[in-house]
Amino acid sequence: MYSFLNNEFLSAEKTFIHASDLATQRGYGIFDFFKIMNGRLLFVEDYFDRFYRSAEIMRLPISLSREELKKVILELVQKNGVSDCGIKMILTGGYSPGGYEIASPNLIITQHSLTMPGTPVLDKGIKIITHEYVRDIPHVKTINYITGIWLQKRIKDEHAADVLYHLNGLVSEFPRCNLFIVKEDRTVITPAKRVLHGITRKNILNLNGKDFSIREDDVSLQDVFKAKEVFLTSTTKRVIPIVQVDDTMIGIGKPGEISLRILEALIETENKN
Amino acid sequence: MYSFLNNEFLSAEKTFIHASDLATQRGYGIFDFFKIMNGRLLFVEDYFDRFYRSAEIMRLPISLSREELKKVILELVQKNGVSDCGIKMILTGGYSPGGYEIASPNLIITQHSLTMPGTPVLDKGIKIITHEYVRDIPHVKTINYITGIWLQKRIKDEHAADVLYHLNGLVSEFPRCNLFIVKEDRTVITPAKRVLHGITRKNILNLNGKDFSIREDDVSLQDVFKAKEVFLTSTTKRVIPIVQVDDTMIGIGKPGEISLRILEALIETENKN
Repeated sequence: MYSFLNNEFLSAEKTFIHASDLATQRGYGIFDFFKIMNGRLLFVEDYFDRFYRSAEIMRLPISLSREELKKVILELVQKNGVSDCGIKMILTGGYSPGGYEIASPNLIITQHSLTMPGTPVLDKGIKIITHEYVRDIPHVKTINYITGIWLQKRIKDEHAADVLYHLNGLVSEFPRCNLFIVKEDRTVITPAKRVLHGITRKNILNLNGKDFSIREDDVSLQDVFKAKEVFLTSTTKRVIPIVQVDDTMIGIGKPGEISLRILEALIETENKN
Repeated sequence: MYSFLNNEFLSAEKTFIHASDLATQRGYGIFDFFKIMNGRLLFVEDYFDRFYRSAEIMRLPISLSREELKKVILELVQKNGVSDCGIKMILTGGYSPGGYEIASPNLIITQHSLTMPGTPVLDKGIKIITHEYVRDIPHVKTINYITGIWLQKRIKDEHAADVLYHLNGLVSEFPRCNLFIVKEDRTVITPAKRVLHGITRKNILNLNGKDFSIREDDVSLQDVFKAKEVFLTSTTKRVIPIVQVDDTMIGIGKPGEISLRILEALIETENKN
């Protein structure tokens, strides 16, 4: 397996970064992740938009143009000979002499196998827990997951699958996923503020007006507890129905009809991309 | 120059970490930093206490016992032949196959040159700005400095030297330093909550009862603005007088007498250690 570092393809096992990198020293960096299916780079322009925007906000110049970056990724996929995969692009703060100033960023591109959620999870749904927290600079896809990873033990201990962040009564997002709720009146809502703008979230918002009424808005913890349906979304997970939040059963405790219809519509969107 | 990685001494320039490390992938790790002066490891037991406690809270086992760690550091200092230096110990989340689970931590120990604050800064004092923020898991010395580094530009633009975090009206700390204020009645107070427990902060709190009245308590932004004196503390900076906070002049706009007396007492404490 090959990966790419700054300006060269190299063996994935040999992709090493010097310890002075600002990611190791200060957790400073951004990343993005998208899917390649049947050789097609799904929604790649959206992911590139976000990656370049994250880089700009965090003051990390990317050494490659979008065209060059795409070319590198296509060459990487060809070298590795795997046409269904995930591509991860990490951009770090670079080798910082003083360990605190942004230097020349390191660009790391790695290819990963994809495991999409199986039938059991879609049949049964998942339990999630909640935690009071908001990510630093939430609209940017930084590498800071200190709290998310630290919460993994609590998630496991409580036999849950993920954790929903909330602050001052309003929910925002999961460490790596967005949230949607379906209200009693069948409108679908995703939190508007303090969230990363997921590409899957965007694709679902784009379904508004056809068979669904979908919008961004404030969502309170109470809205979640009394929702008819709740689900999470991400690039790798697509749509996962949530049937329990902390100790509260959602709806009738089974994956909801609208959630599953949105998943179908999402897969259709992917196939058309 | 040598550094130490897991179980071996190696050239500092060759201290590389694989890109799959959870620090690069997810900003997950802890660190600590202490001074060696004239070959003496200053307050090393306090720093080790904090380092091992941070590691335990973040679920990162340290492969070396305290005795082994101290032996490694002494050997490193001897190899490098520099007896006045800073020692940085970083413990990362390790090489994580899935990029999200804690693996076997990597321990990186590096030696750094020390530059203590010079006379001009102590004569003139510094300006600081304020920012609404609280660090994730503030009592742990994690490597997450996303916000601190991102704020560097604003600090520079506003001709300031550092940024003080506050939330809901209460101030907490700087990205890398603790805060102290001196009230009109000459009592010295440092924020009690949502702070990293600095070793310099501890040494200053220990001065309580001799020539000073020093304690931990809530400190509001207003308390800072109307303080007689304000100063910051850290291992490398010791005590730096603050003469301006945002647009507000502190006291008479000059380093205060009590701040400078505390600095003297701190240096005395260091010399006795």
